[in-house]
Amino acid sequence: MTNNLENNSVEVLLIEDNQDDVELTLLALEEQGLTNQIKVVGDGAEALSFLWCTDQYAHRNPRQNPKLILLDLKLPKVDGLEVLKSLRSDPRTQLLPVVILTSSCEIQDVTRGYNLGTNSYIVKPVDYEQFTATVQKLSLYWLGLNQPPYF
Amino acid sequence: MTNNLENNSVEVLLIEDNQDDVELTLLALEEQGLTNQIKVVGDGAEALSFLWCTDQYAHRNPRQNPKLILLDLKLPKVDGLEVLKSLRSDPRTQLLPVVILTSSCEIQDVTRGYNLGTNSYIVKPVDYEQFTATVQKLSLYWLGLNQPPYF
Repeated sequence: MTNNLENNSVEVLLIEDNQDDVELTLLALEEQGLTNQIKVVGDGAEALSFLWCTDQYAHRNPRQNPKLILLDLKLPKVDGLEVLKSLRSDPRTQLLPVVILTSSCEIQDVTRGYNLGTNSYIVKPVDYEQFTATVQKLSLYWLGLNQPPYF
Repeated sequence: MTNNLENNSVEVLLIEDNQDDVELTLLALEEQGLTNQIKVVGDGAEALSFLWCTDQYAHRNPRQNPKLILLDLKLPKVDGLEVLKSLRSDPRTQLLPVVILTSSCEIQDVTRGYNLGTNSYIVKPVDYEQFTATVQKLSLYWLGLNQPPYF
């Protein structure tokens, strides 16, 4: 459902390796009719390949940027803060809206996240229903209210 | 109501010179029980004085930062994008969440806003009810969901 969108419009790039959280997030977005516009990647290296249209994403249209990147912090290969640092240092991706969505509320993660240029930082609620409500509220905000950068 | 908060906790700093928009915003936030934690300033120079605790705000507690800065772009004395540039260049204020709330949807304003580090960019709806709903949604997001930086 979410792995054949290289050449279609992607509204949300979900960078998350925890399969339970992926499923919960997709279910929450599905209730808002959004799952066809979500791309899920499970590690930081693939996230950068997707965003920069390299490797298996070399044929993706680089002008079709997501309106929102949901970024977990603890990720295989390239961790979330490194992904953020990398995408902020590249003109193709430096302005993309990023929301860190993580279980960490540690001061150093919050501070580094803002220092590296996250647009927003949200701590994942442990409770299932609160998690669902949070994903729905944040997607309504970033896809419905926010004016993303033009490309 | 909103001008004696120098030494109290301010949740929202509203930087707006249009009195109609100020009133609409305060009414929208009042419905959420928030007006006692809002500081309104009508120009960019006063906004920086407030944030940096200088001039008439020299006795304000610099550790009591707002959780959200709502920033209009067309402002007297120092315009909104200059305010943003200035606060992002100062360690005391560089991480504060800023939402540009403006009537402008011009590409150069959106692009400059993101380039200068706004967290989010929202175009003011012309319709009264939509304006109210927008202010309420954005305040719920930034005061209720978002984890602000620690100070």
